[in-house]
Amino acid sequence: MTFITSPEIEEYIYRLSVPEDSIILEMEKLGHKTGFPIVDRIVGRFLFLITKLKNPGLIVEIGSGFGYSAYWFTKALSNGKVVLTDFSKENIELAKKFFEKGNLIDRAEFHVGDGMEIAQEIKGIDILFLDHQKTKYLEAVKKLEGNLNDGALVIADNTLWHGKVVEENPDRQTKAILEFNKYMFNNERFFSSLIPVRDGVLLSYYRKG
Amino acid sequence: MTFITSPEIEEYIYRLSVPEDSIILEMEKLGHKTGFPIVDRIVGRFLFLITKLKNPGLIVEIGSGFGYSAYWFTKALSNGKVVLTDFSKENIELAKKFFEKGNLIDRAEFHVGDGMEIAQEIKGIDILFLDHQKTKYLEAVKKLEGNLNDGALVIADNTLWHGKVVEENPDRQTKAILEFNKYMFNNERFFSSLIPVRDGVLLSYYRKG
Repeated sequence: MTFITSPEIEEYIYRLSVPEDSIILEMEKLGHKTGFPIVDRIVGRFLFLITKLKNPGLIVEIGSGFGYSAYWFTKALSNGKVVLTDFSKENIELAKKFFEKGNLIDRAEFHVGDGMEIAQEIKGIDILFLDHQKTKYLEAVKKLEGNLNDGALVIADNTLWHGKVVEENPDRQTKAILEFNKYMFNNERFFSSLIPVRDGVLLSYYRKG
Repeated sequence: MTFITSPEIEEYIYRLSVPEDSIILEMEKLGHKTGFPIVDRIVGRFLFLITKLKNPGLIVEIGSGFGYSAYWFTKALSNGKVVLTDFSKENIELAKKFFEKGNLIDRAEFHVGDGMEIAQEIKGIDILFLDHQKTKYLEAVKKLEGNLNDGALVIADNTLWHGKVVEENPDRQTKAILEFNKYMFNNERFFSSLIPVRDGVLLSYYRKG
């Protein structure tokens, strides 16, 4: 497997991060225990910082899991809200509990179901976060472009897909990611930057045509 | 030498980047020809995107070289300006020529001399970009903190210093970077994120105490 960032470097950055609030630590513990993929603390901090810069009114997540990335987003809001979506009722219930404990429940909205369908009903998105099935990123961005505000930010996780994007004979998921990245870099309404942090985070600034 | 990002991954991201305007290409060519260290296209695009999100009024660079990073910053401005500083008169003259050619000269201010001293006279900084002597990053941030606006962003290049931050027996420059990173992660007025892109880009969100 091709690695993305040198493990020593990742560990150095991880160690720099000062201890977070207890909810973050609890969520990380749950992620490690169950093997459920969370974006991890390095990316979490990055999302927090990006949100501070952008100061968004509305963040929509497609694929929230039990709410780790949403928790970072929400912590960074001065006002506005985050919409969490996930197919799993169990995940969403867990997310609710963490948000309640962290006193962030008032800034979040929770939905069980197909995030793409749910988001289609939501106009005026400032940050769209994609972390659902990798084969559906491109479909999501095409379906939801009309719901983005001018100057919105699309953030997509796993866009280097464990380094598989540079390997021979890409599988179906890798092909989908390759196609998605190409689209985001070649569509003139988006200005994209792919950051080789953890599993690859694509940031894309949207300008209405 | 410890590498930071897998070279194949870096090349993949580089190839995704669509051709830029001719001035960018000319500056990149000059950087490669002379061996002068520029932040490169991957980081350039990242700075552009960050600037779009932040929408700053005033960007100040400590160590502009011949203006490659400043050019990306300036391209992203909707209004506001960029202050370039460099010890080398030759570099600043080159920068001026590139900015003239690119019709960005009206949004830039050019200074030859000690960037830290020049910046001390400038209040209301929204983005402070550090790319001068690595042993002077910490001094710069301490001296200039009072000149930052609330919500300002400090961006520091080379904060993984060719991967030397994880090697044994760090030299003087590496020690200075290690100390700087530690300071930026442990000072509660800054919220920092170290991105392992190219040679390491530290982003730090500033909140007045």
